Amino acid sequence: MLHGGDLSAARHLFPGAPEPFIDLSTGINPFPYGLPRLSAELFARLPDAEAAAALADVAARAYGAPSAACVVAAPGTQIVLPLVAALIPPDRAAVLTPSYPEHARAAALVGHRVQAVHDIAACGKAGLVIVGNPNNPDGRVFAKDALIALADTMHPRGGLLVVDEAFMDVGPPGLSLASAVSRGNIVVLRSFGKFFGLAGIRLGFALAAAPLAARLSASLGPWAVSGPALAVGAKALADTAWTATTRRRLARSAKRLDAVLAGARLDIVGGTHLFRLAQTPAAPALFAHLGRAGILVRRFPDNAKWLRFALPGNELAWRRLSAALDTFR
Amino acid sequence: MLHGGDLSAARHLFPGAPEPFIDLSTGINPFPYGLPRLSAELFARLPDAEAAAALADVAARAYGAPSAACVVAAPGTQIVLPLVAALIPPDRAAVLTPSYPEHARAAALVGHRVQAVHDIAACGKAGLVIVGNPNNPDGRVFAKDALIALADTMHPRGGLLVVDEAFMDVGPPGLSLASAVSRGNIVVLRSFGKFFGLAGIRLGFALAAAPLAARLSASLGPWAVSGPALAVGAKALADTAWTATTRRRLARSAKRLDAVLAGARLDIVGGTHLFRLAQTPAAPALFAHLGRAGILVRRFPDNAKWLRFALPGNELAWRRLSAALDTFR
Repeated sequence: MLHGGDLSAARHLFPGAPEPFIDLSTGINPFPYGLPRLSAELFARLPDAEAAAALADVAARAYGAPSAACVVAAPGTQIVLPLVAALIPPDRAAVLTPSYPEHARAAALVGHRVQAVHDIAACGKAGLVIVGNPNNPDGRVFAKDALIALADTMHPRGGLLVVDEAFMDVGPPGLSLASAVSRGNIVVLRSFGKFFGLAGIRLGFALAAAPLAARLSASLGPWAVSGPALAVGAKALADTAWTATTRRRLARSAKRLDAVLAGARLDIVGGTHLFRLAQTPAAPALFAHLGRAGILVRRFPDNAKWLRFALPGNELAWRRLSAALDTFR
Repeated sequence: MLHGGDLSAARHLFPGAPEPFIDLSTGINPFPYGLPRLSAELFARLPDAEAAAALADVAARAYGAPSAACVVAAPGTQIVLPLVAALIPPDRAAVLTPSYPEHARAAALVGHRVQAVHDIAACGKAGLVIVGNPNNPDGRVFAKDALIALADTMHPRGGLLVVDEAFMDVGPPGLSLASAVSRGNIVVLRSFGKFFGLAGIRLGFALAAAPLAARLSASLGPWAVSGPALAVGAKALADTAWTATTRRRLARSAKRLDAVLAGARLDIVGGTHLFRLAQTPAAPALFAHLGRAGILVRRFPDNAKWLRFALPGNELAWRRLSAALDTFR
């Protein structure tokens, strides 16, 4: 299980665990945006060019990008990551670590020499820098000014800064680099499915200066996003009332989760309002204990003391999590 | 309008045309596979690894690929075409012409020098050959033995043969190269949306020897296909009764379309059971006449005498097409 969300693998790992298996291994909002009625036409016809243009428009406003020409919609950001990394010739790629494993994988896939770095100052003369902001899994936040300054120093040598803002919807206000992409060497990635709780429809965005956005669109080709995703995305991203309510709801849930985890004597290392990162020397045993109790959390191949917990989505899940933590010795 | 299916562009081109606009500009089956009930979970959760494995299994059987390890599911074949073309280093790419415009575009995008050729014998020492079988738009069919022989001559120098079988579901039986991909340098592309009439869900396949398939999967990254597409695809591709009935139904419709077009003194150049290619010196005027009558057909920038007609999906569409052709002088 390299990634979260793989309940079928969890069921093989913990046969006999009580059902329903509770998936706390992702960073996906457990209170999804209500699906509108989706007409059969959305599934049958080729995705409409006008609907794609409308989505780009709504996304530019929602994310604060300079214009729709700076928006590239894709069937998930994972598919666009290697294309973004390939916008510059193979070079040294600095990946701010700890990080989402797809960052290093995508950079290596297109020929970059990947180097894990722990601070912006350590990026040196890397041609490509990839940073999560807020970062996954530790929730570390990078100041907007510091990232813009980094991009500016990279500019003269053709360097590219990629900021993965997959969790920016629940990040501190004013932190997004979306409005700064017109500087020309910044690409911002935004995930639709995580905050809107609709990871199954596959929708994500790259925000970039218009020439870079055009190159990414050409690589994706026509009809990259499905008809249903175009319709749901345009409606949800325009729903500012739902967004505001949901941010507050997730913040309350995250606070409640912190209390539950602290009650089990776990240290909270960080996180966002969509997940919390806990640390304990007993993490491997706790992972197995929770698994046997039918609760899947996220573990980390590079850090055996860490476990990441997503938000329980209902009272049954909260009770089962608390009960399982109570019986862990 | 480089591609078909863009009704919003058609409405701008022909303001005041009667509605509903009838779209005969694509090669998509107008009798779509009935959508199963799609649970909210399919939209909410990350696409399940087990569901992805099940789809690969069903697709291998439906298309006749050696095994599920030879199947790469993607959100449409358009997104996988440049990845397939990039499986070999930049070289000369022979594109069998006339052809689907994405073939040449994808090859050029990843650095190949594209050459349009009109026959297999003209491919020479090209590193990459892309051929549609049956071909779009002329319906030309290439013998399986001839294509295998071509792949075999390309093998020693590292050449790759790409066979776009987007319309093979309605092609002559026994013609697919799916079973031959284990030879190692053949990639077969299959479209799900065209034959099943569900182009909006974005689902397509590359069939290739396991090592090539693994490279393509790595380029797409995890969760390339949406939850709804995984579910619909697995159900539809296993439905052999629907497939057989639909093939007959499309064959009847294609025959009826030929009669309508011949009645309007158009020459049928070729086609498949999902579209017919007609030729007339009056094609530009006929395109405009049909457009003003609220009927969009496909024209070709490289051949002003051609128009491609998809199958009308209901009696109203048949009547409006016949009436519009009758009033064309």
